[in-house]
Amino acid sequence: MTATDPQGAPIDPRVEALVNDLISRVADKWTMIVLEVLAAQGEMRFTVLGQHIPGISQKMLTQTLRAMERDGLLIRTIHPVIPPRVDYRLTDLGLGLGDAFCGVWRWAERNLTQIEAARHRFDSRP
Amino acid sequence: MTATDPQGAPIDPRVEALVNDLISRVADKWTMIVLEVLAAQGEMRFTVLGQHIPGISQKMLTQTLRAMERDGLLIRTIHPVIPPRVDYRLTDLGLGLGDAFCGVWRWAERNLTQIEAARHRFDSRP
Repeated sequence: MTATDPQGAPIDPRVEALVNDLISRVADKWTMIVLEVLAAQGEMRFTVLGQHIPGISQKMLTQTLRAMERDGLLIRTIHPVIPPRVDYRLTDLGLGLGDAFCGVWRWAERNLTQIEAARHRFDSRP
Repeated sequence: MTATDPQGAPIDPRVEALVNDLISRVADKWTMIVLEVLAAQGEMRFTVLGQHIPGISQKMLTQTLRAMERDGLLIRTIHPVIPPRVDYRLTDLGLGLGDAFCGVWRWAERNLTQIEAARHRFDSRP
């Protein structure tokens, strides 16, 4: 027997690797928050984006944006002005990923209390 | 400014911690595959479940099932027969999480080629 996807078709190992990779990336809260902020606000400058994400360092924001750009999730536009202005916006691909993860986020919000209660019951078993 | 959820409401830090925790858990491919197999097959015995998940060790399957049980994602039923029989099935909570993650899975399947192409373009820049 082989592993199958939710529709029962065999899992393409490339898809499995990509899913694991993407999920562990977006498990990173910074990526998740960048997806959210850009989905809500549209195009933003680097500095303004940073102001919307309390606690993120400039280095971490740069790394996060670079990884997202590499995956085609966002577009980086350099405006030839002095000083140079750099804007970021989500591609359709990035918007789609934000939507897909939104379901997981909503599920967790909805079920927070229930999961905490389940953990408490499990941990207090004799 | 504070971090906001996709609807623009402030993020509850407990929700954020839970989302990060759950996503990194399900990023684990074994949890994802257990969710899929049990969603498709209903209740299963430990040994049969293991046969549906090629490559998983008995120890890893035990650990994965225990973590999912603790979160209230599945129910473990011990039948008092000799030898004892143990069955696993998803709770409504587990089925809901499977559905929510299904969107991410489908997104990755749909966009695999596009992401690989974006990475290739990015990596071959001068």
